[in-house]
Amino acid sequence: WMVKAEFRRRGKEMVDYVADYLENIEKRLVYPDVEPGYLRSLIPTEAPLEPESYEDVIKDVERVIMPGITHWHSPYFFAYFSAASSYPAMLADMLCGALGCIGFSWAASPACTELETVMLDWLGKMLQLPECFIAGTHGSGGGVIQGTASEATLMSLLAARCKAIRRVQATNSNYSESDVLGKLVAYTSEQAHSSVERAALIGGVMMKQVPADNSYAVRVDMLKKMMEEDKAAGLIPFYFCATLGTTPSCAFDRIVELGPLCNEENIWMHIDAAYAGSAFICPEFRPLLNGVEFADSFNFNPHKWLLVNFDCSAMWVKKRTDIIGAFKMEPLYLKHENQESGRSITFTHTHWQIPLGRRFRSLKLWFVFRLYGLQGLQAHIRKQVALAKVFESLVRADKRFEICAEVIMGLVCFRLKGSNELNQNLLKRITDSREIHLVPCQLSGRFVLRFAICARTTESSHIQQAWRHITQLTFELLQEPSH
Amino acid sequence: WMVKAEFRRRGKEMVDYVADYLENIEKRLVYPDVEPGYLRSLIPTEAPLEPESYEDVIKDVERVIMPGITHWHSPYFFAYFSAASSYPAMLADMLCGALGCIGFSWAASPACTELETVMLDWLGKMLQLPECFIAGTHGSGGGVIQGTASEATLMSLLAARCKAIRRVQATNSNYSESDVLGKLVAYTSEQAHSSVERAALIGGVMMKQVPADNSYAVRVDMLKKMMEEDKAAGLIPFYFCATLGTTPSCAFDRIVELGPLCNEENIWMHIDAAYAGSAFICPEFRPLLNGVEFADSFNFNPHKWLLVNFDCSAMWVKKRTDIIGAFKMEPLYLKHENQESGRSITFTHTHWQIPLGRRFRSLKLWFVFRLYGLQGLQAHIRKQVALAKVFESLVRADKRFEICAEVIMGLVCFRLKGSNELNQNLLKRITDSREIHLVPCQLSGRFVLRFAICARTTESSHIQQAWRHITQLTFELLQEPSH
Repeated sequence: WMVKAEFRRRGKEMVDYVADYLENIEKRLVYPDVEPGYLRSLIPTEAPLEPESYEDVIKDVERVIMPGITHWHSPYFFAYFSAASSYPAMLADMLCGALGCIGFSWAASPACTELETVMLDWLGKMLQLPECFIAGTHGSGGGVIQGTASEATLMSLLAARCKAIRRVQATNSNYSESDVLGKLVAYTSEQAHSSVERAALIGGVMMKQVPADNSYAVRVDMLKKMMEEDKAAGLIPFYFCATLGTTPSCAFDRIVELGPLCNEENIWMHIDAAYAGSAFICPEFRPLLNGVEFADSFNFNPHKWLLVNFDCSAMWVKKRTDIIGAFKMEPLYLKHENQESGRSITFTHTHWQIPLGRRFRSLKLWFVFRLYGLQGLQAHIRKQVALAKVFESLVRADKRFEICAEVIMGLVCFRLKGSNELNQNLLKRITDSREIHLVPCQLSGRFVLRFAICARTTESSHIQQAWRHITQLTFELLQEPSH
Repeated sequence: WMVKAEFRRRGKEMVDYVADYLENIEKRLVYPDVEPGYLRSLIPTEAPLEPESYEDVIKDVERVIMPGITHWHSPYFFAYFSAASSYPAMLADMLCGALGCIGFSWAASPACTELETVMLDWLGKMLQLPECFIAGTHGSGGGVIQGTASEATLMSLLAARCKAIRRVQATNSNYSESDVLGKLVAYTSEQAHSSVERAALIGGVMMKQVPADNSYAVRVDMLKKMMEEDKAAGLIPFYFCATLGTTPSCAFDRIVELGPLCNEENIWMHIDAAYAGSAFICPEFRPLLNGVEFADSFNFNPHKWLLVNFDCSAMWVKKRTDIIGAFKMEPLYLKHENQESGRSITFTHTHWQIPLGRRFRSLKLWFVFRLYGLQGLQAHIRKQVALAKVFESLVRADKRFEICAEVIMGLVCFRLKGSNELNQNLLKRITDSREIHLVPCQLSGRFVLRFAICARTTESSHIQQAWRHITQLTFELLQEPSH
C-alpha cells in the first residue's frame, strides 16, 4: 500500500495541512465542545477489511478528531504548563520517524546514542551545570533523555533505593532487602507533583510530604526536623526530591540550604525542575539553580518550555554508576563487540531508563539548538516571562482580584477576592466559553486560577484579549442575584 | 525563527529527503563503520549562540548522522526483531506532532483519549480477544497504549503486587506492606525478555525463572512444582509473565495449560507477546493465543510487526479497576468537570501507565488500520513468515548448518554445526562485512545466529542474496588453516 510516489504527494499535503492548522489555530475554540464518549459513535465499530481511500481518512480528521481537540498551541491556551512546539522540532521528528531506529544499545544505531550524549552536554553547558554532570569532561556523570519527568523521578528514586539498601546491608548483614525497604523513607514537598508520590508507590517505599513555607517552598529546617524524628523512630531517610518550579504556583524549594543537609545525611537529592528548568539558560534565572552542585540527579523537560516537541525530558546524574548499577542486565542479543570499550559502555542509555526501546529524540534538540541558537531560546523564555508580567499587572490593577503567589516565570496564580465557590463559578464560565482555557490549583486551602503562558504564538494582544474576556465573565457573574 | 512559509518549503524538502532515503536505503551499508565516540569530534562542543542556516543543518545529517546509523529499514537488516515503519504511520505522526496535545486526562484532549480506547477495541477484535478485554462492550476491561512492552510488564506486575498485598493483609492484618513484599514471588520463563526480570527489580519483589522444555516453552508442570515448593517455604506466589514469541527463538509458553493453574492459585497471568502478537490477526496463527481468556493482562507491540512506527505497545486488562486502583491520584490541576461521569473516568489512561504525559499515538493506528485494511495487514504478516520459510529451506539444504528452533513466525535460529567459537567467528565476519546485519542468542548453551525478517521492503531476492553472502563468508572461514 501507498506507493512511494503517493507518499511524496501526501506528505507534502500533510505539511500544508499542518501549516494551515497552526497558522489559523486561533480561529478555533481552544476547548472542545464535546461530551465524554462523543467519538465512538462517529466511526465504525471495527477496522475495515479492505483499504480505504486516503481522502476519506483525511476528511475524517476534521470530522472526527478536530471537534475533540484541546488546542494546546492556540495563543488562547493558558492551562497546565506549556507544551513545546516548533517547526525545527517537527522537521527533526519527520527524520526520526524515517530512520526508525530503536536505540537500545550503541550498536543499534551509534549516532542515536552518541548524539544524545553530546546534546545533553550542550544543554548542560547552556544551564551552566557543574562539570561533574557533563559526560564530555570525562567526569563520572552525564545526561540521558527520558520520556517524561515522571520517569526521571522514578529512575532517581530506584537508584537511590538500590544504593541505600546496599549501604544498610553492608553494616547490618542480617537485614533482608525487604527489611530495609520497610524502613526507608523518602521526602518531597507537599507542593510536589503527583508523579513524585507515585514513584515512591512504584518503588514500594514510604514517602512523606514536607510542609512548605508561605511562599510554597520547602526550607531546610522543616526537612531536618522530619528526618530527625524519623531516624529516632528507627526509619532510614534516603531520598529527597526537590522541586524547582512547582506545578501549582511555580515555587522554588531552597536547594542551596537543602543540598548540604542531604549530602551530610547520605540522602539522594533529586531536583525536579520539569517546567522551570528551561529558564536557567538565561543568566538572570540561573541563580535559582544554585545548589545543583549538591544534587545527585537533576531533570527538566525541554518538551515543556524549550521549543522541543514532546517527548524529551533531560536528566543528568552525578555518578553514572549509581544509576546503571541499579538495573544493568545484558542478554546476549543486546551485546556487541564495542561493548567493553571504555567509551561505549557509558553510552548504553537503556540502563538509565525504564523502557528498553527509545526513539532518536536527540535529533530534535540538535535541530532546535542550531536553528534557534542559544540567543533565540533565551528570547523565547524572556518573552513568555514578560507576558506573564503583563497579565500580572492587569490583575493587580483590578481591585476585585488578588495575586496568590509571586510571579517568577510564566505562571500567574490569581483569584477573585471572595469564596472558593465564587472562583469555581468564574472558572466554570471561562471553561464553558471555550475562548480561553485555564485550570485551577489549590493554595493554602484556596481555589486559585492558574494562568500559564503556553503557546509560542501568544502575544501581548492575546493577553489583553484574555483579560477582557475574564473581566467580562466576572462582570456577568457578579451581576447575578446570588452574589 | 523559521517563518511559516519556510516551514512549508522545508517540510516538503524533508518529505522528499525521507522518500529518497527509504527508496535508496539498500545502497547503504546496513551496519555503520564507526568507532565508539566517532560523533563527538564531528560537531562543536557547545550549542551556537546565534541561529545557523537550515542548509548547514541538513548537510550535517549526511555528514554526521548517516555514517553512524544502523539502517533498521534496509532490506538487509535481520537483527533483533522488526521495527515497524510505514508511510501512513509517518503521516499520522506528522499530524500528531502538529496537534502536540499531551493526553494525560480526558479534558487535555478528548479525541486523544477516546480514539485510543476505540482503536484498542478495533485491534482487540482483530485479534479476537475475549469480550472482557473490549471496553466498548461495557465489560470491565479495556485497552491502553503503552510506550513499550517493558512498561506494560511493569504496570501489570505493579497492579498484581497491589492486589496481592491487599489480599494478604485482609487475612493477616498484622502483616506490614514490606512483610508481604518480602514474601511475594513472581515467575517467568528462563527464556523471557530481560525487561521482565527488571520489572521485578523495580517492583522490589523476588522473581524466579521457570525452566523451559526443549522447545524453549514453559509447561504447567514445571511452574506448578516451583510454586508448590515456594508455598511450602512460606512464600506467596502472585504473578506469572508468560511469553508468546520469546526473543531468543520465538517460542510460545503453553498458556492453555498455564492459565487455569494461575486462575486457581490467584496468580496474575500477564502475557507478553511483544513481537508475535501482531500475527494473531491471521486466523492460522490465532490458536497460539488460545488461553488468553485466563490472562489478567495481555500486551504486544504494533510498533514491531504491525506497520505502526515506534512507539506503540498495545495492552489490555481484564479489569480496569485492578490497574487503576494501584495508582490513582488526582491533584486539582488534573480534575475536570466530566471527571465523575460514568464514561470518562475509565478514559483517564494516565492511571494505567508510568508517565503522566502521552502523545496522540492512536492516530498512527487509525491511519494504518484504514489505509491497509485488515487484509493488507494480514498480507504483510504472511509475506514475512513466508520469507522466513524461504530462509529456513536454504539453511536446511546446506548440511554444514542446522536449524536450532522450530520456525513458526519470522525468525530463523541457525548455526554452523561445530563449536560456539566457530559460530562467533562467522557472526563477526558477517557484522564486519556490514552488508547484512544479524545478532546472536544463546539456546541450550549454544551460540546461535538469529535471522529475523524485519524490513517491510525485504523480498525473496534479498533473502537469496543474504544467504549467498553467509555461505561465501562461511566458505572463507572454513578455508582458514585454524579450521
